[in-house]
Amino acid sequence: MQLLVLMLSQGLHIQDRTVTQLINDKDLNFLLYDVFKLEALTDLERYQDHDKNTFDSILETAKGIATDYFAPHNAKADHHEPSFDGKQVKTIDEVKIAWQQFADAGLLCAQHDYADGGMQLPTLVNMACNAYFMSANPSTVAYSFLTAAAANLIQAFASSEQKQMFLPHMLSGRFAGTMAMTEPNVGSSLGDLTTKAISQADGSYKIKGQKMFISGGDQDITENIVHLVLARIQDAPQGVKGISLFIVPKLKTNTDGTLGESNDVQLAGLLHKMGYRGTTSTVLSFGENDNCLGYLIGEAGHGLKYMFKMMNEARVGVGLGAAMIGYRGYLESLNYAKNRPQGRLVHEKTPDAKPVNIIEHTDVKRMLLAQKSYVEGALALCLFAARLIDEHQAVQDEDSAILLDLITPVVKSFPSAYGPKANDLAIQVLGGAGYTREYPVEQCYRDNRLNPIHEGTYGIQSLDLLGRKLWQHNGKGLTLLMQRIQKTLFEIQDSKLTELADVYKQHLATVQKTTQVLGQALHQGNVSEALANSGLYLDMMGKTIIAWLWLEMANQAQLKFGTSSQQEDKAFLAGKIQAAQYFIQWELPEIEHQAKLLMNFDDTCLNMQSDWF
Amino acid sequence: MQLLVLMLSQGLHIQDRTVTQLINDKDLNFLLYDVFKLEALTDLERYQDHDKNTFDSILETAKGIATDYFAPHNAKADHHEPSFDGKQVKTIDEVKIAWQQFADAGLLCAQHDYADGGMQLPTLVNMACNAYFMSANPSTVAYSFLTAAAANLIQAFASSEQKQMFLPHMLSGRFAGTMAMTEPNVGSSLGDLTTKAISQADGSYKIKGQKMFISGGDQDITENIVHLVLARIQDAPQGVKGISLFIVPKLKTNTDGTLGESNDVQLAGLLHKMGYRGTTSTVLSFGENDNCLGYLIGEAGHGLKYMFKMMNEARVGVGLGAAMIGYRGYLESLNYAKNRPQGRLVHEKTPDAKPVNIIEHTDVKRMLLAQKSYVEGALALCLFAARLIDEHQAVQDEDSAILLDLITPVVKSFPSAYGPKANDLAIQVLGGAGYTREYPVEQCYRDNRLNPIHEGTYGIQSLDLLGRKLWQHNGKGLTLLMQRIQKTLFEIQDSKLTELADVYKQHLATVQKTTQVLGQALHQGNVSEALANSGLYLDMMGKTIIAWLWLEMANQAQLKFGTSSQQEDKAFLAGKIQAAQYFIQWELPEIEHQAKLLMNFDDTCLNMQSDWF
Repeated sequence: MQLLVLMLSQGLHIQDRTVTQLINDKDLNFLLYDVFKLEALTDLERYQDHDKNTFDSILETAKGIATDYFAPHNAKADHHEPSFDGKQVKTIDEVKIAWQQFADAGLLCAQHDYADGGMQLPTLVNMACNAYFMSANPSTVAYSFLTAAAANLIQAFASSEQKQMFLPHMLSGRFAGTMAMTEPNVGSSLGDLTTKAISQADGSYKIKGQKMFISGGDQDITENIVHLVLARIQDAPQGVKGISLFIVPKLKTNTDGTLGESNDVQLAGLLHKMGYRGTTSTVLSFGENDNCLGYLIGEAGHGLKYMFKMMNEARVGVGLGAAMIGYRGYLESLNYAKNRPQGRLVHEKTPDAKPVNIIEHTDVKRMLLAQKSYVEGALALCLFAARLIDEHQAVQDEDSAILLDLITPVVKSFPSAYGPKANDLAIQVLGGAGYTREYPVEQCYRDNRLNPIHEGTYGIQSLDLLGRKLWQHNGKGLTLLMQRIQKTLFEIQDSKLTELADVYKQHLATVQKTTQVLGQALHQGNVSEALANSGLYLDMMGKTIIAWLWLEMANQAQLKFGTSSQQEDKAFLAGKIQAAQYFIQWELPEIEHQAKLLMNFDDTCLNMQSDWF
Repeated sequence: MQLLVLMLSQGLHIQDRTVTQLINDKDLNFLLYDVFKLEALTDLERYQDHDKNTFDSILETAKGIATDYFAPHNAKADHHEPSFDGKQVKTIDEVKIAWQQFADAGLLCAQHDYADGGMQLPTLVNMACNAYFMSANPSTVAYSFLTAAAANLIQAFASSEQKQMFLPHMLSGRFAGTMAMTEPNVGSSLGDLTTKAISQADGSYKIKGQKMFISGGDQDITENIVHLVLARIQDAPQGVKGISLFIVPKLKTNTDGTLGESNDVQLAGLLHKMGYRGTTSTVLSFGENDNCLGYLIGEAGHGLKYMFKMMNEARVGVGLGAAMIGYRGYLESLNYAKNRPQGRLVHEKTPDAKPVNIIEHTDVKRMLLAQKSYVEGALALCLFAARLIDEHQAVQDEDSAILLDLITPVVKSFPSAYGPKANDLAIQVLGGAGYTREYPVEQCYRDNRLNPIHEGTYGIQSLDLLGRKLWQHNGKGLTLLMQRIQKTLFEIQDSKLTELADVYKQHLATVQKTTQVLGQALHQGNVSEALANSGLYLDMMGKTIIAWLWLEMANQAQLKFGTSSQQEDKAFLAGKIQAAQYFIQWELPEIEHQAKLLMNFDDTCLNMQSDWF
């Protein structure tokens, strides 16, 4: 604090800070190797060339680039957000350098097949690499992640000519990618979008319309930008069935990747966000001069289906971002709490007692433990999703795909709800200091607030889960989830964690009962009543899955505890068990009250009238 | 949204917006006249010159000044925060104009006695006036509120010479006031402060030390600033008993109020906050050149006691600010939800159905109803505190003072916890728009995050409540609170609200039981265990009091419903009853789980070790 005062007195405003740590490496190793059995993946043909050494070396590379090229300008990019002078967007130089480092390391296509120039890296490792970047600088890496996801969509659905024209340039970092879905008067209701596509004699389309909230929609980082645009071909049916997907480059692009004139994609303006400021958020006008060329991807009318490939990937990415911004704030507040002396313990309140570091106060421990349980739990959830993707990709295991599909709303939403809560607690641990821009946690809080909104709001995720995902494939997703949970519960029988597992089982029964009651109501056609309180159900399912992952982590920690010789390792493992206890005893039981409201079909909100407000 | 796009395309950045509404006037009238029986106060001698007309006219004046002079620059003051060039602080001109309007209207001393130039206005009315300003522009009005509170302290404890020297100039708006308590290495632990006061032959003191986080500690709005500084006279005992309070003007002040040279109070730097940016937050150096003159207030060693007069007033003020920033966000999101068409109801999902305004979606109703229940409940709590102050002031009713003392941590903390939650929901209602600075709700969210920190953090309030306030005067405060609650419960017997009251009673019993169990533990000396989870207790008590106020509001609404002829009034009253139902059925029952953790003396947080993180 004295240092801060000194700097203020010299008129300095802190821009680049020493980064505490991006992830607790002990935690990441534990999650990858002990909880999610990363090494076992190398038994699968797809990953057989990899081993622990190659994984660790890729993780080190990612960590190094994140630390050296992304973290240092996180605050600066927030303070000097991209500007638009009516002609060009200007971002700070560090963003472009970081972007190229990311691309040069092959991270845009690390998971792609060898045949396509990739490394066939398991998603589990890729997700862990991404975690470093999300912790370091979520708004700069957003350009890379959007581009990787757009490339994946093109890879999956575009024609070989289209691939040849765009993919190599995206993966090398020459072109970036975006997803251009919503419009000013459309919001989340994509079926109402009005952007038009008029077919041309040569098989291409002319695009005309306005898109809003397009992240990375314009920038000065890459030579070209590849927009994936949802639009409606003339005479297409109303609603989602009339929507097609188009590749629309910012600059006209020749088949060899050289660039021509403007493709009539105009930046109407930048939106000025509370956080995530380093990523441009744009309003784009396509075809104001009737000269905007688009290429149809796949079949007409299937646009939303294709886009959902990218969207689902983006939803998991949002979950990871929310988890890691939360994680970063947790580490910053932990570091502060360990080094800031203030006050005395409640039973030692004499003026001549020495002040303790604030981490010794029980209420500060609570705030750190809550953060730990949220962010390490949320990271575990994202890695679990990655493990499912790998199981599906390597051995075409359909069950993994079904389970991933079920939990995607939770992977998007739990971190988005609890990551910001963690950041709120991080500010509170720092107190007044945490509220100032001289410390990094307030930026985390602002950045993370985006996550419950974009790629489908919390409310939309809750309807997706309760109104659709649970009942697909005859409810098989839930059965598969319960099997995984039961496996963990079975494994911790007779261990010291039995008591915790018993608490868990009791609440799990509540979730099962609630799901059954709601399912029956839906089956009987009481849609409005059954879905009225879907937000509660999403939170309940999130807590249930996270608490299960904490049980699993506690179980692995317990198993490892006996074989660890280092005191430091034992302390880490003891912390895992304590955090599991916190989440299961403090957070999970809140679902009981939620279950009551759900099972009673509480109609307080449903019956509220708009003129009563 | 189309308007926004148009403005963006013209390169405009919205600064001054049309203000939706500062308070729902129907609500404020209902609270003042129906719930808190404002007119009954005019039966008391102190307020006998007032009547409904004078009250309404003062409220109109406050609303007018808040609307015309404060609200219009709320966003601008955030965007152009005060700057410091090493010599002078510069704030935007609108702040000074607003400041003077507030002072000229007599609002700095509205509650003072006629003899002291005041209006003898009930605190209840004054609090309602303040509510308009907090909704309009919390950071500009902070200068006024701090000055009023400092003036009240001087009025109560300073000598007549000191009063004469400073008070008239503070109340006229020539001088501002601050509270200068904490220091860089002290934080909340005031007993450790080190600022020195060296007594001089003429009875004055020389002050030497550094103060941090001093709101309004420097500015270019007023001719002079009156700092109330906590310091330690040489050879004073350690801890809080050695702390005295001093008046330290920024410029040397003559007895006639004319100003001399600098009093050696230097601005070391401005802190840059996430929100509340219009109010300077400063680091101040007193007496770097051994030339800083201070005047002792009252007796040496009683500094903290005097400061707590101002502090308690400030705590209620923080509660009001948090409530009103929440309230403003609620009204903004309500307005948006009523006018933004998007999506269809869950049982009408055909593409040719017309989109509905989003207020028709049950999840949006939930978000608005939660906000309504938090912010109207929080405003009611602050007005209840004001009513208690009036009862104490007008007829020296000690019981009211004891009850106010008990609930002050709740008045500070409930709004500080739930106001930001409301702002979070306001952003969510607006979706992507809410996350941009083109709309006002993100500023509310940033501004409100200060409130759980300053004037005693949430954790400190929880220890104050559970460790001290509950047990003072042999627990009389709680008895008085229970009497008020029982009165409401008695009055709604046999009414339509009986069912809601029954739910309430059941939870009230839990609170009583929990309090008893914790009290016994404290009595037996198990301090660490009993206070370990004090944060849960504070939240529980907050919900209990707010739920009671909602019952009281619902009861008054029910009584009024029959006599209202206007459809619009009936709708408002129905909304009050629905919000009471929401708070009691959705929020209040969460205390059951908290009670379990408290009564079990859950030691998860207490036992967490710092090296386990």
